[in-house]
Amino acid sequence: MNFCSNCGSRVDLKVPEGDFLPRYVCPSCSTIHYQNPKIVVGSVPEYQGRILICKRGIEPRRGYWTIPAGFMENDETMEAGAAREAVEEARIQVEIGSLLLLGNVVHARQVHVFFRSRMLTPEFGVTHESLEVRLIDASEIPWDDLAFPSTEYALRRFVEDRAAGVERYHVAEMHRRF
Amino acid sequence: MNFCSNCGSRVDLKVPEGDFLPRYVCPSCSTIHYQNPKIVVGSVPEYQGRILICKRGIEPRRGYWTIPAGFMENDETMEAGAAREAVEEARIQVEIGSLLLLGNVVHARQVHVFFRSRMLTPEFGVTHESLEVRLIDASEIPWDDLAFPSTEYALRRFVEDRAAGVERYHVAEMHRRF
Repeated sequence: MNFCSNCGSRVDLKVPEGDFLPRYVCPSCSTIHYQNPKIVVGSVPEYQGRILICKRGIEPRRGYWTIPAGFMENDETMEAGAAREAVEEARIQVEIGSLLLLGNVVHARQVHVFFRSRMLTPEFGVTHESLEVRLIDASEIPWDDLAFPSTEYALRRFVEDRAAGVERYHVAEMHRRF
Repeated sequence: MNFCSNCGSRVDLKVPEGDFLPRYVCPSCSTIHYQNPKIVVGSVPEYQGRILICKRGIEPRRGYWTIPAGFMENDETMEAGAAREAVEEARIQVEIGSLLLLGNVVHARQVHVFFRSRMLTPEFGVTHESLEVRLIDASEIPWDDLAFPSTEYALRRFVEDRAAGVERYHVAEMHRRF
């Protein structure tokens, strides 16, 4: 950040009075520009025991496999965002279920909120965000070609929990891998 | 947002190619300025069966009771943020426990992530963010003078779950009340 988004003046980086972290502060209009983590919402979609995965069509990690997920937008709930991403990445209609992962991705300044979801019909398709979409058995998950640590973590817990007949939530920290 | 925080030019509000929502876009340097929900992290601190609450010393809702919570910062986990807020608002040291509430606060463009927490010692105190701090029995919760819908929701579920001997998580939408 170089300029104040409110008045266009050049900002200073300093600790505001009563604060404890440096912030971008505007010397002209006094606006303090806070920067905070972003939320990524998504789900592991299931249809009659099979799991839906998408091959990423955009960077980062183009060509690697993931579950439908993306940045949460203003004016939507986490569940609505996760369902929207399922449409955008795989053209599927889902019903969002239980919480699967609440992931701290500190290095990326993100929190990943992933749910289990149920596909309402078996239809799916590619979009400009996905090169390929597949409905697979758990035994076919391409563990070596997953896009992100949180993708792997979510799928491993999903499969384990399902085998155990439970729907647990997991709070975990994802470490940089790439 | 009026100006590009990268180059200082006046921004346009338009739907970028391939997107579906209007964004602030810089006509000079092409930066797209996304705006996303912020995360509020906090906890319901407990010490030997009593619950800690704080009377807010800052706006919004100054003078109303709340649990220690605030905006999650970059470069911390949700749990670290919730523990930091406990220090900042009540001078308490806590161990963060199970997830209590994952709250959609759509009108405020926030997600509230509240945990249960255990105070490591009975010491507490006021700070510049709190007018008063109390360690109370559940029967003393000032239900009519709580700061936010998520404060009430979290405390009600905390008390109910504790009475039932369980530590459930709750995903819910908080509606505007004030």
